[in-house]
Amino acid sequence: MITPDFEKTGGLVPVVTQDAATGEVLMLAYINREAWETTLASGKATYYSRSRKQLWVKGESSGNVQIIKEIRIDCDNDTLLFRVEQIGGAACHRGYRSCFFTKVEADGTGRITQERVFDPAEVYKK
Amino acid sequence: MITPDFEKTGGLVPVVTQDAATGEVLMLAYINREAWETTLASGKATYYSRSRKQLWVKGESSGNVQIIKEIRIDCDNDTLLFRVEQIGGAACHRGYRSCFFTKVEADGTGRITQERVFDPAEVYKK
Repeated sequence: MITPDFEKTGGLVPVVTQDAATGEVLMLAYINREAWETTLASGKATYYSRSRKQLWVKGESSGNVQIIKEIRIDCDNDTLLFRVEQIGGAACHRGYRSCFFTKVEADGTGRITQERVFDPAEVYKK
Repeated sequence: MITPDFEKTGGLVPVVTQDAATGEVLMLAYINREAWETTLASGKATYYSRSRKQLWVKGESSGNVQIIKEIRIDCDNDTLLFRVEQIGGAACHRGYRSCFFTKVEADGTGRITQERVFDPAEVYKK
């Protein structure tokens, strides 16, 4: 059994999440042991929210869940790669396909290079 | 000017490094402010080694440098994506194309899914 090295970095291990079909990098998030076990058992990407300090089933609010297609672990056993099917076509809470929707130009300025897939104000209604 | 939020996480920001041509995720590493500025100025991926506690020009020992093709920053301004040309065809110090050469199977075991590009014992000679 492979277990990520949760001890090394205080209980949290970073996860790179990639669209399995297109190869696009969607986001970076963190897991603790419970999130890891929940992901394996449910087949849906489950992270640990550092701001809310709780388990975070990705897409629980927005419906944009991530179905696990493949999991990879790195050579140091302290970083994971989730290759997923992104339901709803958008991983970012700001409504973009990927959280990396901003390109850093050569002059150091940022430029948004994607169109919004959804309107966050509509999706995260109170 | 975009500057990653180095304050948020104690001076270090994670970087996902992706092969710009194939989309393969190669590795995850960290940068501090100096590594960020060096990367921008040199056009070569430069990280901060947490174990050696020093600036780390990727490929300085092995020759496998990473030429920056595009830089993206995430919605929280605290994670970067370097899209690179991987010189030598291998990012991993263990001789593999990607550090994520191990697939986690459904039964939780790990399986190496890539062939070595180089022999680390030959490349990192004393």
